[in-house]
Amino acid sequence: MAEYVVARDIYSEDKFNEEYERIDRPHKTILNHVKEYFSCSRKRVCSALLSLFPIVGWVKIYSVKEWLLSDIVSGVSTGLVAVLQALAYALLASLPPRYGLFATFFPLIIYFFLGTSRHVSVGPFPVLSLMVGAVVNRLVPDNGPPMNITAFEGLTREQQRVLVASSVTFLSGIMQLAMGVFQVGFVVMYLSEPLVSGFTTAAALHILVSQLKFVLGLPVPGLNGPLSIFKTLEIIFQKLGSTNACDVVISAIIMGVVYVVKELNERYKAKLPVAIPIEVIMTVIACGVSYACDLKTTYGIGVVGAMPKGFEAPEAPDPQLFQETAVEAFPLAIVGFAVAYSVAKYYAVKHDYTIDGNQELNAFGVCNIIGALFKCFAGSTVLSRSAIQESTGGKTQVAGLVSAIIVLVFTLAIGFLLEPLPKSVLGSVVIVNLKGMLMQFRDVPYLWRRDKPDCVVWVGTCAASIVLGLDLGLAVGVAIELIGVVLRTQFPRCSVLANIKGTDIYKDKKDYLDTFEPEGMKIFRIPAPLFFANIDFFRKKLEEALGFKPLRVLRKRNKALKVIKKMLKKGELTCTPKGYLNMCPEPYTEVDGEDSVEELDLPTDLKDLPIQVDWRGELPVNVNVPPVDLHSLVLDFAAVSFLDVSALKGLKTALKELIRIEVEVYIVACDPYILEKLHSCSFFDDEVTPSIFFLTLHDAMLNILERHPESVEYKTNLNKIVTSATAHHPNSSVRSRDRNGMEPETRF
Amino acid sequence: MAEYVVARDIYSEDKFNEEYERIDRPHKTILNHVKEYFSCSRKRVCSALLSLFPIVGWVKIYSVKEWLLSDIVSGVSTGLVAVLQALAYALLASLPPRYGLFATFFPLIIYFFLGTSRHVSVGPFPVLSLMVGAVVNRLVPDNGPPMNITAFEGLTREQQRVLVASSVTFLSGIMQLAMGVFQVGFVVMYLSEPLVSGFTTAAALHILVSQLKFVLGLPVPGLNGPLSIFKTLEIIFQKLGSTNACDVVISAIIMGVVYVVKELNERYKAKLPVAIPIEVIMTVIACGVSYACDLKTTYGIGVVGAMPKGFEAPEAPDPQLFQETAVEAFPLAIVGFAVAYSVAKYYAVKHDYTIDGNQELNAFGVCNIIGALFKCFAGSTVLSRSAIQESTGGKTQVAGLVSAIIVLVFTLAIGFLLEPLPKSVLGSVVIVNLKGMLMQFRDVPYLWRRDKPDCVVWVGTCAASIVLGLDLGLAVGVAIELIGVVLRTQFPRCSVLANIKGTDIYKDKKDYLDTFEPEGMKIFRIPAPLFFANIDFFRKKLEEALGFKPLRVLRKRNKALKVIKKMLKKGELTCTPKGYLNMCPEPYTEVDGEDSVEELDLPTDLKDLPIQVDWRGELPVNVNVPPVDLHSLVLDFAAVSFLDVSALKGLKTALKELIRIEVEVYIVACDPYILEKLHSCSFFDDEVTPSIFFLTLHDAMLNILERHPESVEYKTNLNKIVTSATAHHPNSSVRSRDRNGMEPETRF
Repeated sequence: MAEYVVARDIYSEDKFNEEYERIDRPHKTILNHVKEYFSCSRKRVCSALLSLFPIVGWVKIYSVKEWLLSDIVSGVSTGLVAVLQALAYALLASLPPRYGLFATFFPLIIYFFLGTSRHVSVGPFPVLSLMVGAVVNRLVPDNGPPMNITAFEGLTREQQRVLVASSVTFLSGIMQLAMGVFQVGFVVMYLSEPLVSGFTTAAALHILVSQLKFVLGLPVPGLNGPLSIFKTLEIIFQKLGSTNACDVVISAIIMGVVYVVKELNERYKAKLPVAIPIEVIMTVIACGVSYACDLKTTYGIGVVGAMPKGFEAPEAPDPQLFQETAVEAFPLAIVGFAVAYSVAKYYAVKHDYTIDGNQELNAFGVCNIIGALFKCFAGSTVLSRSAIQESTGGKTQVAGLVSAIIVLVFTLAIGFLLEPLPKSVLGSVVIVNLKGMLMQFRDVPYLWRRDKPDCVVWVGTCAASIVLGLDLGLAVGVAIELIGVVLRTQFPRCSVLANIKGTDIYKDKKDYLDTFEPEGMKIFRIPAPLFFANIDFFRKKLEEALGFKPLRVLRKRNKALKVIKKMLKKGELTCTPKGYLNMCPEPYTEVDGEDSVEELDLPTDLKDLPIQVDWRGELPVNVNVPPVDLHSLVLDFAAVSFLDVSALKGLKTALKELIRIEVEVYIVACDPYILEKLHSCSFFDDEVTPSIFFLTLHDAMLNILERHPESVEYKTNLNKIVTSATAHHPNSSVRSRDRNGMEPETRF
Repeated sequence: MAEYVVARDIYSEDKFNEEYERIDRPHKTILNHVKEYFSCSRKRVCSALLSLFPIVGWVKIYSVKEWLLSDIVSGVSTGLVAVLQALAYALLASLPPRYGLFATFFPLIIYFFLGTSRHVSVGPFPVLSLMVGAVVNRLVPDNGPPMNITAFEGLTREQQRVLVASSVTFLSGIMQLAMGVFQVGFVVMYLSEPLVSGFTTAAALHILVSQLKFVLGLPVPGLNGPLSIFKTLEIIFQKLGSTNACDVVISAIIMGVVYVVKELNERYKAKLPVAIPIEVIMTVIACGVSYACDLKTTYGIGVVGAMPKGFEAPEAPDPQLFQETAVEAFPLAIVGFAVAYSVAKYYAVKHDYTIDGNQELNAFGVCNIIGALFKCFAGSTVLSRSAIQESTGGKTQVAGLVSAIIVLVFTLAIGFLLEPLPKSVLGSVVIVNLKGMLMQFRDVPYLWRRDKPDCVVWVGTCAASIVLGLDLGLAVGVAIELIGVVLRTQFPRCSVLANIKGTDIYKDKKDYLDTFEPEGMKIFRIPAPLFFANIDFFRKKLEEALGFKPLRVLRKRNKALKVIKKMLKKGELTCTPKGYLNMCPEPYTEVDGEDSVEELDLPTDLKDLPIQVDWRGELPVNVNVPPVDLHSLVLDFAAVSFLDVSALKGLKTALKELIRIEVEVYIVACDPYILEKLHSCSFFDDEVTPSIFFLTLHDAMLNILERHPESVEYKTNLNKIVTSATAHHPNSSVRSRDRNGMEPETRF
């Protein structure tokens, strides 16, 4: 059994710094940082270039013998899935399916050179596609004329839509690149787990509703903006009578088969060498059946339709569209990066390599910028496709390059094979894949039990995203989250501490029975940073804990003093050795408002008086001064992690008021950076001095006990201590010089 | 000289709670709070009613003899200034001057019954008036047709404007009342000092520019929205040639005289019984001169014009306008309340009475709601007018009532006297009074030196408010501020602590020379709350401090173990008393990717081995395991004031990784609420147990030293301690039972 034994001097911050010299570590100024950032050496330039083109790093160590085969296998499997997803997600973006192939091909090629993740399969992401679709539908609606944009003149509706999609993609790429260059990729940290979960759940609902029209074969115009999800559902219900039976049958079969096989894949994951690519199989079958039976003309179902071979000529995005879509491009940039980064990080941790957040931003920015010139829409990554790439043995982005070749083959040569593919097949595949995202609803009860604020973030983000649309919903979510952080620190649970008898431990007075609170002392713990939003709250709580308002006491004292001085002058009061004696028979009437308040707030001026006034005793004059039985207050700053200027001013005022009514205030366990800041912000003056800072609560308490031997409890303790101290520490002055590590007392 | 002497047991949280019983304080659930809130007793109803009508409280104690006269004097002075300001601020709101009188009268009457401040003079506030003016100008512009609103049909432009102003006022009143009822008045705390300073400075600039047209006598349409201030200036410069000379002369005289007299007032404040009401005097003179010389027809200057007697019939606000102005009504509600509250609080502190924030919200809400029915525009208070009310001796809101009567007299009877008053006089008076607000620019260098983040808030709010307009600017300011709070905690300055020799004190290793860090131990301090935005940062910093990645080490060890087991089976490895001996001549080649990663992340499974593997020594197999020379890590949680679910998950993962590579982790000085939360969120399992929590750093360190006597330093210290301990504490078991207060050793 070990024991905790310490014998040392009592340390105030000042004394400690006298005894132990601090190493002077110069702080870097902003200028230093800027200089350092822009300093240029050959090595720095090289490593910067290398980090801009990560391919240079890994191509050198690429092991053709070991990796190439698995990369090719993985790339082909991933490529087939990518083609299918490309077509489906293009529908989400309200664009013709073939643009999905472009939006897959170009990012794959660019990411091969610029990306730091080895397993991410870049390309369209359903949530992003839907967000692009919302912009497209707003500017070029299905019903009614498009928005009045000069560049739209002479273009077909389809071309207008492609122009909108590529412009907003270009802009979001610029934003990503800017974030990467200025190294502010940390903003994605604000997308916390509950927020992302709530957001993607809402997105899944939006996607589900948007795909219903394909599954049911109904002509429903794409809507956007607040409440659009409800309006779309309303239209679908109204038109439910004209559902295309063939589409419904196809969808039901596809959904059923894909769902069952996916469940089997999941269950026998360990036994299967590789997951059954059921989506690809079903697509091939559906294509064949549709072509053989000519479903399009026989049953009038919607099919993918014309797939012209080859790419389209590049086209510059339209600056006027940038203005119109700036607000929507920002969430695209953020969400696109956040999703890709989280997937990339998952695989980086799994396979133990590092990814560079800012370089990822650069990579996705360039993907979107160059892609947009070739009529791509915004891309990111899909977890499901990346999972295929990784699980089929993909080792590097060479697999991505192989996928790109597969997509290229479809674009240039065999795309026409997909022409008879029913859109309902694409819709069904998308819907089945939403299962995981929708199942996140189960997070809610878990979060509610664990952490109410997180649950509020989830529900708030999800509800706002469903009702207001994804971009506004995301903004609302981030706002809820930021306010949540502020709120957590805004109403801290302040507490009054007391000593646990016989130890140097201090605990909440209300929590333990056997505590000891010396008379005339109070220990107040502030369990949060102090800043503009909670300094008033803190002062209110402090006054509640004290049981009196220091400013009121000060004013009453000053008022009493004025009366005393006046009466002394008039001879109505005389001074006796026991105190003052009122000679005037009639009571002095207090006249309100004759003193200026400013004067009453000054420190009490005792210098003209013959003897001290005892504020604790009864006053000879008829001014009622509230009694203060406190001589010392200790503020425990251990959990105050920062302090802003508003808080600093508030704290100083509070301290001054207390010091002026003769309450000694001590601050303990203050962070060295805060202490430095107090010095630099001229916190200290004649009244508030640095000597009030002590290292620990116990140091401050011991110091107070020494200064106030009048306390009864103290005196009784003192006798015990003197005996015990001399018995146990006969030469403590020697011991305190003998500093050699900690001293646990152990008996085995 | 006192000394710090403590001898007690070493306490882990568990042990401490065993020894000292905790008082079980049941936490209130949300249900309890709701129940309590809606519980109904006669006393509660009475006090609630009383708090809704504060007048009931103070009328009872109203001392007619002492207070009435000063209230009347103050009310009359304030009333005259209020009339003048009413006219001027109505111009800011782009409304005919007489509506300013209404907007002063009704709030004064209503606040008399509902307000808790005794000194605030309610009525139009220039910044709010300007914000109302922006809405008015947006919906009913000077040039061009008004917005397509049904209720506008058949109304003159002036009537349309009044309808817009009263509708937005009504809506902001509803918002204030709602905030008051739901007791969320604390939101004004987010308007920190730098934010308000930056915002009002920008507002002053807007007001200045908006008044230039009156001062110069130019016809400039009221603009609004982003960049409107620059557009207005552009128009003014273009038209500068057609300036009205008479207006300029009047303005110059008024501004000069008012400015000088105000400076004199300020300088001889102490000597003057009351400040010279120079604005009122100049207005009377200007009225007289304008009437006598008929300036309007002679020089074509703009005058106040027709002032019909009496009030207008009440009119319901228009719900369609609510939709159009909802976004602008919210900042009106917030700013109006925030300004009034801060002025009220200033006087409440000065005169030592309490004001009730939520009741103030109710009062201003009702003022705006009822006022809007009588065609008022949004009101709050003006510091200058409240200062007049207080300095001329106002004691209660009876002074406000008297002011209301003065306004009433002008409205009903003598308003026509003001008809010849030039608008340039009103503009000049407004401009001169902006001095204080504009001088806040001087805050910037002060803030820059003191606290950069606060300076950023000031500049950001001010710039955004100037460029984007006041409402958007305020939103930007609040966003900057909230992000600022999050940023301050997002990148905490984590540090590695070390013991100050011979004490129980631990300081940043880099700050002090004479520190002691026992071999194989590390103390890591986290100086901020842990939450979603910084948990990854914290883990990165921890890994940097450790110098290795725990997960990587774990995987390497597991891989090595698999190889060892395989070789043992094959007989290529034999077990000797000294360890394992590799019998196989050729080195084992590591095959990448054949093990599933999930398996490698599990705890190392040592049970099938004949003897322990010594991870610190050399391994018999060709698997390179990074050496770990750390046996214990202590995390100092003293400054972790909260923890959210994301942080909890991240922390648990980090702890598990460490525990699995046989590093003992201890958490010290953890807040009791956080500990409770960890228990309720199933943070603990077989690997992470509550026994890792210790009361203080020193407790944990002593415990570690006891568990790891192999440390060389420890052994040398041990000898010293055993001697000294037995010498000093012969019967510490007795002493630890003898708990009687702190034990300072003092020698006088």
